[in-house]
Amino acid sequence: MGTILVVGTVAIDSIETPFGKEDEVLGGSATHFAAAASFLAPVRLVGIVGEDFPLDDLKFLKARKVDLSGLKVGRGKSFRWAGRYSYDMNRRDTLRTELGVIENYSPEIPAEWKNPDHLFLGNIDPKFQMKVLEEAGRPKKIYIDTMNLWIETQRKWVEEVLAKAHLVVINEEEARQLTKETSLVKAAKQIGSWGPVAIVIKRGEYGALLFYKGEIFSAPGLQLEEVKDPTGAGDTFAGGLVGYLAMSDQFDFEHLKKGVIIGSAMASFNVEDFGPNRLKDLEIGEIQGRIAEFQKLGSFGKIEI
Amino acid sequence: MGTILVVGTVAIDSIETPFGKEDEVLGGSATHFAAAASFLAPVRLVGIVGEDFPLDDLKFLKARKVDLSGLKVGRGKSFRWAGRYSYDMNRRDTLRTELGVIENYSPEIPAEWKNPDHLFLGNIDPKFQMKVLEEAGRPKKIYIDTMNLWIETQRKWVEEVLAKAHLVVINEEEARQLTKETSLVKAAKQIGSWGPVAIVIKRGEYGALLFYKGEIFSAPGLQLEEVKDPTGAGDTFAGGLVGYLAMSDQFDFEHLKKGVIIGSAMASFNVEDFGPNRLKDLEIGEIQGRIAEFQKLGSFGKIEI
Repeated sequence: MGTILVVGTVAIDSIETPFGKEDEVLGGSATHFAAAASFLAPVRLVGIVGEDFPLDDLKFLKARKVDLSGLKVGRGKSFRWAGRYSYDMNRRDTLRTELGVIENYSPEIPAEWKNPDHLFLGNIDPKFQMKVLEEAGRPKKIYIDTMNLWIETQRKWVEEVLAKAHLVVINEEEARQLTKETSLVKAAKQIGSWGPVAIVIKRGEYGALLFYKGEIFSAPGLQLEEVKDPTGAGDTFAGGLVGYLAMSDQFDFEHLKKGVIIGSAMASFNVEDFGPNRLKDLEIGEIQGRIAEFQKLGSFGKIEI
Repeated sequence: MGTILVVGTVAIDSIETPFGKEDEVLGGSATHFAAAASFLAPVRLVGIVGEDFPLDDLKFLKARKVDLSGLKVGRGKSFRWAGRYSYDMNRRDTLRTELGVIENYSPEIPAEWKNPDHLFLGNIDPKFQMKVLEEAGRPKKIYIDTMNLWIETQRKWVEEVLAKAHLVVINEEEARQLTKETSLVKAAKQIGSWGPVAIVIKRGEYGALLFYKGEIFSAPGLQLEEVKDPTGAGDTFAGGLVGYLAMSDQFDFEHLKKGVIIGSAMASFNVEDFGPNRLKDLEIGEIQGRIAEFQKLGSFGKIEI
């Protein structure tokens, strides 16, 4: 069992979906990631919130042994994001971004947390991702997330960070945007040529693809009757995936495939409620049950023709 | 082993894709369907072509024991379709449709072909689908395809045909358009309430979903580096699916799942070249090889957490 260090945002979100509206709910990439990963392995979190942050909202993470001693309370307001989802949930518009304390924040890794077994860099400015990599010593495994904004505005930094990563988690559109390839096979090959040995491409309701040393694995998307709020689905996906790799301390095709399924299960819970609410009182038996659903969803017997 | 009766179009297509342009290639829903289904079961084809049709192009179907004695050569020109695909192949524009002999055609079922084991109604005007159903006697199993055009212009007829079908093959967008439901689970439930016990939703590069008596199966999409021409992918998919159901003469969840995989394999070959060209000299060993790829693509071992 390895320990995970996560560096990312801890935020306050305001979200509108066709199913409702919630103001000032818990958000952030590190929050969602830790909420999922902590079911599987010990998590240490580095990030910043403002003086106005309702720290009580993080109690459920502490109860699950997430070490929050790397979470700084800075002077000023917390990072806030407000967004609205389209009717089919496939598009979202950012209504407001207030950087607050994040604006002048430079992540610091506590001395005793350096050289982590597993380092996950949530979706933050790739310049900061790079700084964390310089500070973190020699992580055994490095996993990174990124987003369209950084690909558009800081492509060179994104590529530099990718060169250091063992695994990257990226959206389908972002993979195409980054590589200018339509075929995801070609896109994954190109990203792989820059550094990461494992490329995980998220496809929302369609599931996820894993590319690893010339092999491909396709994870189905669970068919849900209702998706309440997709926010944080990608981060909980990464949390389940990296959590399982840390739990097993393995990094091969078999474990990566299982990790992708566990990530998909975590994400499928996360979208059932606003913010990470559904993960708060989730039980391990429920996760196992959903993994069994994934197993069944794509299984078929031996075909003879 | 049951025999399949297919009623649909036999056409001449002109196709532009980012990978090339081909004028006057073999097309039509019945053609593509028969090209795929004939690997698995005997096929009888009902349709019409014009006096200008290059009947030699159908030789490969005859060689595979497709009975073309129900293919009428009418006075006038063959049905022609011309289309252009967008860069990512996800959208196509119809450039030209020339109905020709189809305009005044009313499908007739030869007397000795009535009461078929398996009847597939390709994507033609639902009024004609209904007429075929009236003429066909008592088919043991009825499979139908439809398209957005008919849903927009002849919804009532589409619903009447659906009420008679055991299985419907429909695109994701068409399923949503038909039911006005975003969730495919809800869409499939609604379609099922109108008649069909099996609903197969095609999702292009993302694979296909099968809904059957409250159960769901998700077939992955094969990741291809190059797609040359998607025309007829849906019909070859249906051909593989219905072909397998006819070959096994079974209609339960296990056989439907396997049929969906065989259909996916057939479609994945079809898109490798223009028209049904790739299916002309395809060998059964290649199909088996691709089915094995599908088996591997979505498999993962027992997960313990």
